[in-house]
Amino acid sequence: MLYLNKDDILTAVTMKDVIDAVDTAYEVYQSKQFQMPTRLQVKDDDHTLLLMPCMTNDAIGTKLVTSFPHNKNHPVLHGLVILNSQENGEIMALIDGSFITGFRTGAIGGSAIRHLAKEDTSKIAIIGTGVQGLYQAVAACTERSITDIYLYNRTPEKVPSFIDSLQQWIGHTIQIHAMDSVEEAITHAEVIITATTSKDPVLPDNPELLAAKLIIGIGSFQPTMREFPKVLYQLADHIFIDTEDALAESGDIATPLENNWIRRETIQTMASFLTSKQQIQGGKTVVFKSTGMALFDVVVTNLIYQRAMEKGVGQNLT
Amino acid sequence: MLYLNKDDILTAVTMKDVIDAVDTAYEVYQSKQFQMPTRLQVKDDDHTLLLMPCMTNDAIGTKLVTSFPHNKNHPVLHGLVILNSQENGEIMALIDGSFITGFRTGAIGGSAIRHLAKEDTSKIAIIGTGVQGLYQAVAACTERSITDIYLYNRTPEKVPSFIDSLQQWIGHTIQIHAMDSVEEAITHAEVIITATTSKDPVLPDNPELLAAKLIIGIGSFQPTMREFPKVLYQLADHIFIDTEDALAESGDIATPLENNWIRRETIQTMASFLTSKQQIQGGKTVVFKSTGMALFDVVVTNLIYQRAMEKGVGQNLT
Repeated sequence: MLYLNKDDILTAVTMKDVIDAVDTAYEVYQSKQFQMPTRLQVKDDDHTLLLMPCMTNDAIGTKLVTSFPHNKNHPVLHGLVILNSQENGEIMALIDGSFITGFRTGAIGGSAIRHLAKEDTSKIAIIGTGVQGLYQAVAACTERSITDIYLYNRTPEKVPSFIDSLQQWIGHTIQIHAMDSVEEAITHAEVIITATTSKDPVLPDNPELLAAKLIIGIGSFQPTMREFPKVLYQLADHIFIDTEDALAESGDIATPLENNWIRRETIQTMASFLTSKQQIQGGKTVVFKSTGMALFDVVVTNLIYQRAMEKGVGQNLT
Repeated sequence: MLYLNKDDILTAVTMKDVIDAVDTAYEVYQSKQFQMPTRLQVKDDDHTLLLMPCMTNDAIGTKLVTSFPHNKNHPVLHGLVILNSQENGEIMALIDGSFITGFRTGAIGGSAIRHLAKEDTSKIAIIGTGVQGLYQAVAACTERSITDIYLYNRTPEKVPSFIDSLQQWIGHTIQIHAMDSVEEAITHAEVIITATTSKDPVLPDNPELLAAKLIIGIGSFQPTMREFPKVLYQLADHIFIDTEDALAESGDIATPLENNWIRRETIQTMASFLTSKQQIQGGKTVVFKSTGMALFDVVVTNLIYQRAMEKGVGQNLT
């Protein structure tokens, strides 16, 4: 049994490997060869424990996450992925679940950029400079030759440390611009990524700033949360989701459906898009909304485990 | 974060400590100060993943167990307990779940002996010489001055290695008798412990061999499994269960209820018995049926974690 922390994971795999694993997870999703029940939630006042298991033909993964929203000196979320063998049930690896959640969510955005963004995309905007925004930026730079990253955060004091962290990942050759408004941040961007916990749209209801772009939504994972404005649904030529759970779980999909801004038939899963080998034409407005699922965690952590074993990385538990 | 294997656990606590923790868990059960949802089961052909969480005011515990019934060269069950802080959600410890399940189930039987067996009990019978039987015997010897242990197993070839294992725990001064039939094994025993996976009663339908004894059932954890014969329910002056889940989960309680061999009102939880400070009179026939619950795991592993920290035991994960 192997314990893998953040450093071990980054020795074992690259962001590009994890984006490949996300694409593999979409193939599994389309094949329906997996078991993934609704997550189990245990609540006690404000403390929440979430258990998210998934079985594929290759492995059994369980993500455990605690959420303590009032933590001041500790992270709000703590996580662990437990990876069991599908051969004999043995526990193969215990993996830092907090890091892997951010990193694989970055890779989900990275996969969207790989398949949906113009080849010559060079300018992106990140709205929300938290952990999720960081790995979204890293993944974007993995998939396209990015020259400029435009940042906006509601609390501007948090931007400098984000830039420091980002430069540790991508170096100093890419221009990073801290902007004073969302409008300024997205004006020149060809890809816009929102990674906030907002309850109200963070993007402006202005078609000129959104049309013919790829808009990636990461933040809204509850029906009460929204990042996208109404006008985006009128502009969108394509709307993709990473899992059908997004239809009910994310306010960025559930609210437009309820209000008839969009019809169900216009929403496609990435899994069906990728297996159908369709192409996105130039000049289209494309929306991708991620809510994540345990299937990503099991496919990604199984790859990390395999690579860690090959490279002799990690702490052995006896 | 601490990883604790079997050796670490046994350095941190004794069986008596764990029996104390089981008694504490009954107090928590009676106080209703815990959250314990129905366990989450994921199945894929014959492979099963079980997730059993429980939150108390002191800790959050999740037991993860895989069951691969066709394993030949590996154990059928693999398990892990993940213990999170109730202060900030942090993962405090990862604990060998296979060992702790057997050990704490032994302690559940040990607690029943502590509170329900005659003080001068010296002779016990163990029916079923698997892992569960081993820790039941160890726990019994912790609580009473046992002089003789009578063993019966359907496959007699397995008994010698069981005796070797048991002697490593309890030494060589206690007489261990391998018997050729259940009847012979239980004739002289004052406490009878059944730890089989039988679908049909393993104890004989003979009141003379059962009356005025303490009968502890460990094996039946599904409605289709039974260890106790019909006559036992006519004899029984007291019937105790470790959790109300036993009413539906165990064939040793569910079947007699369905067939009106017993009435619901005659069944009492150990938690209510212990908090009411009742006493068992001499000469009574007493039945105790355990099916286990995640509450035991969280209380027991939290104690193990606290003791391990005090003694500097376990492997640190960074």
